[in-house]
Amino acid sequence: MLVLSNEAIAGLISMRDCLEALEPMYRDLAAGRALLSPRVDNISPSAHPGAYYAFKHMGGTWPARGIQALRINSDVLTHPLVDGKPRRVKAPLAGGRWVGLVLLFSTETGALLAMFPDGVAQRLRVGATNGIALKHLAREDAKTLALVGSGWQAGAQLMAALAVRPFTRVQVYSPRAQRRDAFIAEARAAHPQVQIVAADSAERCVQGADVIMAATSSLVRVIEPAWLEPGVHVSCIKAQEVDQAVLDGCERVFVHARQQAKQIDHILPGTPNVSAEHGWWNAPGNRFDTYPDVGMLVTGTAPGRQRAGEITAFVNSVGLGLQFAAVGALILDKARAAGVGEQLPDDWFSEDVHP
Amino acid sequence: MLVLSNEAIAGLISMRDCLEALEPMYRDLAAGRALLSPRVDNISPSAHPGAYYAFKHMGGTWPARGIQALRINSDVLTHPLVDGKPRRVKAPLAGGRWVGLVLLFSTETGALLAMFPDGVAQRLRVGATNGIALKHLAREDAKTLALVGSGWQAGAQLMAALAVRPFTRVQVYSPRAQRRDAFIAEARAAHPQVQIVAADSAERCVQGADVIMAATSSLVRVIEPAWLEPGVHVSCIKAQEVDQAVLDGCERVFVHARQQAKQIDHILPGTPNVSAEHGWWNAPGNRFDTYPDVGMLVTGTAPGRQRAGEITAFVNSVGLGLQFAAVGALILDKARAAGVGEQLPDDWFSEDVHP
Repeated sequence: MLVLSNEAIAGLISMRDCLEALEPMYRDLAAGRALLSPRVDNISPSAHPGAYYAFKHMGGTWPARGIQALRINSDVLTHPLVDGKPRRVKAPLAGGRWVGLVLLFSTETGALLAMFPDGVAQRLRVGATNGIALKHLAREDAKTLALVGSGWQAGAQLMAALAVRPFTRVQVYSPRAQRRDAFIAEARAAHPQVQIVAADSAERCVQGADVIMAATSSLVRVIEPAWLEPGVHVSCIKAQEVDQAVLDGCERVFVHARQQAKQIDHILPGTPNVSAEHGWWNAPGNRFDTYPDVGMLVTGTAPGRQRAGEITAFVNSVGLGLQFAAVGALILDKARAAGVGEQLPDDWFSEDVHP
Repeated sequence: MLVLSNEAIAGLISMRDCLEALEPMYRDLAAGRALLSPRVDNISPSAHPGAYYAFKHMGGTWPARGIQALRINSDVLTHPLVDGKPRRVKAPLAGGRWVGLVLLFSTETGALLAMFPDGVAQRLRVGATNGIALKHLAREDAKTLALVGSGWQAGAQLMAALAVRPFTRVQVYSPRAQRRDAFIAEARAAHPQVQIVAADSAERCVQGADVIMAATSSLVRVIEPAWLEPGVHVSCIKAQEVDQAVLDGCERVFVHARQQAKQIDHILPGTPNVSAEHGWWNAPGNRFDTYPDVGMLVTGTAPGRQRAGEITAFVNSVGLGLQFAAVGALILDKARAAGVGEQLPDDWFSEDVHP
């Protein structure tokens, strides 16, 4: 059983690798050759004031690569106000660290093959999924990208966008000016061929943009319906960053996966501050369930952009355990080839009694 | 992060410990102070002839002990015929071993606290749950126990039965005579105060019994409705060991947990031999959803046995991740006190990026 670190994984796989790894998985999912298991959140009160404990897991079986993945998050969650808007912030209480894990099993033998923290893989798969949608939905001649957000996810969104379109200008907005400027400095170093500039409001950020990517932890919309110009593509990493009013202003909308449009929430009575995050799916007027998904997009069952003036959107709604099967299979191959990671005795993670 | 072996766990906890650990969990579940997550099975074809791959997981949050448990099974499953009847048999293909794991997390910090193979804990929790039901449903003066089955689970059923009633005689049947006789020899050594004898058919096994316990891997019923005598209590570890016809002959029936009456099955098209195991829940005439459960039994919301002549039954239907939270909390306490297990670096199972 191989234990890998985020650092090792970051050295093994690139955004382009992830884009290549995910697309065949979406094709198999669309064709009924891969299985999801539902995303389940167990939510209960925490001893920490205003916080709650959230245990989340989601699985995916991808027979083509012989991999079963399970992604687990064990978080103490808070909803602080930043710039007057509530955010979803995980408190690092596990020795000052967070707890997100991916487990990979063999569908041929059942064996636990690997475990690793989810951070690097999680960020790359979110970016790659938005990148795949962008490839099919943004204008071919898209040149200016508006990026709303400057956190951990925003960097991967930028990498994915640049991997599928030759953007020449990126406009970045975050309410945290210091964080935004640090992000821009890092992004300029990573992508020296692109002009990367700061915007001092979300509205100014999206002006003149061919593509708007939201990559925030906001629990309320960060894009206003009035901002949508003909031909723009809107992309987000959380359903809450846009709302039905924004999507109603778009002519062609895709979600991540129809089979997993909803998550299963189990919420213990008395848990504080949960409502802002959960229950979005059932909000009145929400038509989330009616949109086609990435599997339909990559197989052509539902076509991508048809006209230059069309307003398109992709909502990277509920994540899929299958993304971790696809990216995980790639990580495992590369780690084995490179001899990276801690090898633990397989007997610790198996047994000689019929369970 | 503590890694424990089945051998270590067997040395730490007893059946009586498990009976004590589980009952307060069922009270909390009944009172809305503990959370289940659904049992999910992902079923897909396997490269092994006639076999399929089954990935199963179920979670449970028990705030009273600050524990989130997740139990995972990663199995290649076969359905061989034994004595003409189909059985559910897991193939040990992970280096000759099986793969069942329990992960325990802290609901206070999110940290992964422990991992261990599920075998010993799984057997004890199944036994303890049937034992709790037996305590409330069998006659106080029960003296003769019929045990149908002589495998890994049967030993725990016997331990649980003897922990809650002073049985003086045990009649054991299994179609595998050699296995049955070996089981009886072991059982006599473990329980020298009890007369333990072989029966050469299931029908003869149940004759004169005050309690009938099935503990098999059968996918079809092993008890016939005509065998039920007034005053008997019927207990099983799999819903398929009894069927609606058997339950219709009982006056007072309990299931494990109404909140988890069904499992969620995701079955990939083309997977062989699955039907005998799955789909039981929706069989015509099945009234499984109408029975009260163990939480209601231990809190008195649904009363146990009311008359000596009543025929009662307990169907230990779908397992609960919460059983592993309860037994797991106990194992963790005892392992820490005894200094048992392999301590791995917590940093391997956490991360410094907000996932």
